[in-house]
Amino acid sequence: MSVDAPLPSSPRLIIDLAAVRSNYLLMAERSGTALCGAAIKADAYGLGLQEIAPVLVKAGCTSFFCAHVSEGMVARQILGHEVEIFILNGVQFGEAPLLRQKHLIPVLSTPEHVSLWHEAGENAPAALHVDTGMNRLGLPWQGDVPDMVKGLNLTLVMSHLACGSAPDHPMNQQQLERFAVIRTAFAGVRASLANSAGILLGKNWHFDLTRPGIALYGGAPLDEGGPVLAPVAHIEAPILQVFPLRQGQSVGYGADFTATKDMMIATVAIGYADGLRRDASPGGFGRINGQKVPLVGRVSMDLSTFDISTLVKPPKPGDLLCLLGKDLQALAIASDTLSYEVLTGLGPRFVREYKGCGA
Amino acid sequence: MSVDAPLPSSPRLIIDLAAVRSNYLLMAERSGTALCGAAIKADAYGLGLQEIAPVLVKAGCTSFFCAHVSEGMVARQILGHEVEIFILNGVQFGEAPLLRQKHLIPVLSTPEHVSLWHEAGENAPAALHVDTGMNRLGLPWQGDVPDMVKGLNLTLVMSHLACGSAPDHPMNQQQLERFAVIRTAFAGVRASLANSAGILLGKNWHFDLTRPGIALYGGAPLDEGGPVLAPVAHIEAPILQVFPLRQGQSVGYGADFTATKDMMIATVAIGYADGLRRDASPGGFGRINGQKVPLVGRVSMDLSTFDISTLVKPPKPGDLLCLLGKDLQALAIASDTLSYEVLTGLGPRFVREYKGCGA
Repeated sequence: MSVDAPLPSSPRLIIDLAAVRSNYLLMAERSGTALCGAAIKADAYGLGLQEIAPVLVKAGCTSFFCAHVSEGMVARQILGHEVEIFILNGVQFGEAPLLRQKHLIPVLSTPEHVSLWHEAGENAPAALHVDTGMNRLGLPWQGDVPDMVKGLNLTLVMSHLACGSAPDHPMNQQQLERFAVIRTAFAGVRASLANSAGILLGKNWHFDLTRPGIALYGGAPLDEGGPVLAPVAHIEAPILQVFPLRQGQSVGYGADFTATKDMMIATVAIGYADGLRRDASPGGFGRINGQKVPLVGRVSMDLSTFDISTLVKPPKPGDLLCLLGKDLQALAIASDTLSYEVLTGLGPRFVREYKGCGA
Repeated sequence: MSVDAPLPSSPRLIIDLAAVRSNYLLMAERSGTALCGAAIKADAYGLGLQEIAPVLVKAGCTSFFCAHVSEGMVARQILGHEVEIFILNGVQFGEAPLLRQKHLIPVLSTPEHVSLWHEAGENAPAALHVDTGMNRLGLPWQGDVPDMVKGLNLTLVMSHLACGSAPDHPMNQQQLERFAVIRTAFAGVRASLANSAGILLGKNWHFDLTRPGIALYGGAPLDEGGPVLAPVAHIEAPILQVFPLRQGQSVGYGADFTATKDMMIATVAIGYADGLRRDASPGGFGRINGQKVPLVGRVSMDLSTFDISTLVKPPKPGDLLCLLGKDLQALAIASDTLSYEVLTGLGPRFVREYKGCGA
């Protein structure tokens, strides 16, 4: 057993590349006549750019979206020069030459971005982010945007939906109408509005290029409903100890869980340092042999405790507890957050294994 | 500007090694006649084992605590063979030879651990974890522990406080009394009960070896009060855009923050993928030139928005927003969690810089 081999005591994060492929193909189909790109920012939503990006290319993706310049540089190394890579956070002072050299396309979102790219000269392609109501990043849609960007070699004009996860929210229609206005000013330039949720809003939101993120990684894009996606991330963590907790005894930090009856507890080698959020208890759960077992007591940094009282056949130390998979959304809800934050919050201590797609 | 140089668009995480040293020395002083070890699990609470562990050695630390065997192996590579390294999660089937080879000391916490170490033979040192009320990991204090471990070469007997952060909690005294009983059965074996909070409980809790964690990294060990610790982790993130938000306009996902008056907003290149938790808004804040600026709107994966209306001199794109430092505890509270989870949740996208202690 060498230092590089997975140790029985380490939790594993298994990432299903065939599921990523399947989710991409579904989003591409739902994108209709629009091309389907992919958001690969934040290390492909925490799941591994190095392994995931090539799978997306093989599935037909040619347009990738990173947040940071640093991410784009890594993506370029992985993906070679046959694909386009957009940098959603734009360009900062001093970075333009680097972007040009790596053929990264900045998404110009501020007057300063536009100036920096103008000054860099040479007519390299740029994208334009127009803010239609998100009020986070982008040139205001009401402003004289076409005049401001005159002379630039624009390859894409985009905006971002604030409320796509709630299909009935009036902002979706309002942002669509504002974006349509902007688009008419940029004839011949590709347009992009839809993230995963936007794709599901329907063809009016698709324009020329879509850019799904969360759906590729198995997270639900909508607050309720939506297509069934293939689960991508699966955790398996070893059970370290199984013991009886007697009625009246407490478990874990703060002693704020007290057994109201005799119980059996399994202590598992996963904690909040691995991304099992403290918020997940109470309400969160794992599975042992497919059966649900609730989290009880506070999640610690390296350990967590589950109520295994209902299992007919109790597990032994060394057996595995599973988390995420098809339960990603439920665990996110129990943790008072979104699947996005659960995935990007997965810690560095996992042994990561990739399966599917010839991985 | 090469791929390895910090880019202006990347957030930076600055870790003050002189502060770690200062906090260690304070904890060592507060440990009285007990030796002061250090918990370095979870990559030194997310801040970098490689850089921090040698600083602790130079400050006089010779006993280190990891959670996983994999962490211990990395620590051994960094620290050489002059220090002792304990593995709090114990030993799993098949791992004993590796532990022996790397001179890692398993903390035996279950009957299975004890059997595995017995079977491995050869009398290599082991530690023993007795559960005095945490009910998470450890042999039950009521059981016949001395008999169970007969023949083992024990170098440490330890337990863990469930409620140390609340000095007045009755469990602290109860666990102390139980541990004292256990200890008498292991004459000549070193004893350890106190984490950071336990050190502050007073000399009765110190025994032979203390093992502070959070205090070393600048986090408050107590729910209220406690010594002033030197801040260790400092974030600096670039401002990407500054713009007016008019009364009635919303900002960010879900449009659930609406301006009740005209405001100025700064959009900053840091998001929950970096560990600025979604929970932090509302209630959380950063600083620009030392002045507090509140988070407004939802934190996104790569971006967040701050209300800079009160700043007399508004910042420009490229200026820096600061997070953590002396505000770690306040940000943790605003995020409905502990400083521990904030630190271990810091993401991989930072440019990490170490300062102090000749770093």
